[in-house]
Amino acid sequence: MSNLGHIGEIGLIQLIKHKIDTSPLVNTPPDGFELLVGVGDDAAIWRPTNSAYYVQTTDTLVEGVHFSRNTFTWSDVGWKLAAVNLSDLAAMGADPAAALITLGLSSDLDMEMVDGLYDGILECFNSYSGQIIGGDIVRSDQLFMTMSLIGQSDTFPMSRKSASVGDVVAVTGNLGSSAAGLSVLKSGDKQQFSGLAHAHLRPDPQIRMGKLIRNSGIDCAIDISDGLLSDLAKIGLASEVEIHIEASLVPFDNVLIDKDWPNLTELIFTGGEDYQLAFTGKEELVRELLQGSTGAIIGQVREGKPGHVKIFSKSGEEINFDRPGWDHLLI
Amino acid sequence: MSNLGHIGEIGLIQLIKHKIDTSPLVNTPPDGFELLVGVGDDAAIWRPTNSAYYVQTTDTLVEGVHFSRNTFTWSDVGWKLAAVNLSDLAAMGADPAAALITLGLSSDLDMEMVDGLYDGILECFNSYSGQIIGGDIVRSDQLFMTMSLIGQSDTFPMSRKSASVGDVVAVTGNLGSSAAGLSVLKSGDKQQFSGLAHAHLRPDPQIRMGKLIRNSGIDCAIDISDGLLSDLAKIGLASEVEIHIEASLVPFDNVLIDKDWPNLTELIFTGGEDYQLAFTGKEELVRELLQGSTGAIIGQVREGKPGHVKIFSKSGEEINFDRPGWDHLLI
Repeated sequence: MSNLGHIGEIGLIQLIKHKIDTSPLVNTPPDGFELLVGVGDDAAIWRPTNSAYYVQTTDTLVEGVHFSRNTFTWSDVGWKLAAVNLSDLAAMGADPAAALITLGLSSDLDMEMVDGLYDGILECFNSYSGQIIGGDIVRSDQLFMTMSLIGQSDTFPMSRKSASVGDVVAVTGNLGSSAAGLSVLKSGDKQQFSGLAHAHLRPDPQIRMGKLIRNSGIDCAIDISDGLLSDLAKIGLASEVEIHIEASLVPFDNVLIDKDWPNLTELIFTGGEDYQLAFTGKEELVRELLQGSTGAIIGQVREGKPGHVKIFSKSGEEINFDRPGWDHLLI
Repeated sequence: MSNLGHIGEIGLIQLIKHKIDTSPLVNTPPDGFELLVGVGDDAAIWRPTNSAYYVQTTDTLVEGVHFSRNTFTWSDVGWKLAAVNLSDLAAMGADPAAALITLGLSSDLDMEMVDGLYDGILECFNSYSGQIIGGDIVRSDQLFMTMSLIGQSDTFPMSRKSASVGDVVAVTGNLGSSAAGLSVLKSGDKQQFSGLAHAHLRPDPQIRMGKLIRNSGIDCAIDISDGLLSDLAKIGLASEVEIHIEASLVPFDNVLIDKDWPNLTELIFTGGEDYQLAFTGKEELVRELLQGSTGAIIGQVREGKPGHVKIFSKSGEEINFDRPGWDHLLI
């Protein structure tokens, strides 16, 4: 069998999903527990019979992969762990309910680290709600932390597979700030570009906007964690549609233009980790939702090759990228 | 602040629990989501209003800490990941419902690894039920895997805090086999002692016995993961009682006596990872439950110092251990 570096995350998930789907007894839930969406979306959805919908997701941060002690305080790491999980619930239009947290820690770590980490988690939860109901602590030379988060929604949550041909595609706010912020944190002027650094360290999960969108009747959304192109491709694949984007419509922080930022287009389209939402719906409805926000309509849902995302310049020329987004396992 | 090696896991959990309990908004769940047991037991318990009880737990395996490639096949690792999580549900008397799985993997791993891992997970789930509803895959040089598991129960699940003075203390089966099996796997005769090796690689979570115990009306249990003394101390602390054990009553595999196994007493009392249940209840009821099993009544719940576990020889002398069980963070 080929190794993970060659197959990549998507191939790996497909293999796992196939194994789960074809396993004889695994997909028989107990009475009263109804699974509605399993492997393959931002979160799994299930419900007790005749009750609300509960939404569960999990995300992990690994030191040296998702953060570094040189650029993050421990409380920044805690905030981000909570924020990336909450962002998955935002993409479903759900309310946060309950979290489990697993810490993989080496014995030489200082208590200040755990203290700061939980400060950041709780600060984020206090801004968006959510409670910690348990977890696990294990020893590990490489530091990691996992959150497993349940959310709740009175209506059926949004998914990736409901994009319809003719819908417009929109995002809830600026893209590229987090990726630009990372370069600032590594070797830039942290005073001058504190807003960009903040966007990387302390992203705001779009919980309230996610619920507004859901309550308007829209049922297709995703959070932009891996990069706009990569995440739109996931909507396109799940919905079996092609997505066309007009590059000049994608919103970003003015400071990036003012300062003539290097690789601007790449940052905006493939940078990732902004944790804005991308969603699709009828133009009038979407326009109303975005009033007064930095969000914008950026393109359309079209018939075509499922998962194909095409980007056009203002003058109608197609723009190509060699490597859209970030695949955690591709070398 | 002192470092984790000095404070240990229990001190660390206390700090985290305190921080969570004193955080202003974190403990306000959304309407219709009722949290009944949070941080501090085998699993968290919550329920949708007027519905069944849902039980959620999480456990992680880290390479080099919980398993080694020299002694485990990948499918053994998968089985064990599922089994240690199921065991927490067994201790609550709950049915497995749904699991999220996080994998921290390096790019140089072979696909056979993931394939074998899921084979083991699914094999275990197919024996005891449970479904995988999602997860996360991240890059990590040190390999780890986390399961977050929800269970369900029609009656209020068992906890650690219901042991009453006058109750007897019982275990559901042999102890020490897993620890003996680990030594066999490292440097012993794997053919001759295949039963012991199997006990370490493929522990049986006591899901069915847990439900039998719960349905009999018993409401206090724990799974023996860290070692009998350490886990009974947790019951004693939570229930504010002292526990007295008669060493000669603790059941173990005859092969350990036949072969004059080194450190036998230590293996049985502090070895851990057998994933039998320890529980407390009225003597007659417990005796009935244990009929036809390898389980046994091993002691009594007494008034005294909360969390204190005393072990007595057949002749009534007290036996002392310097370091009961295994604390993941004590150096």
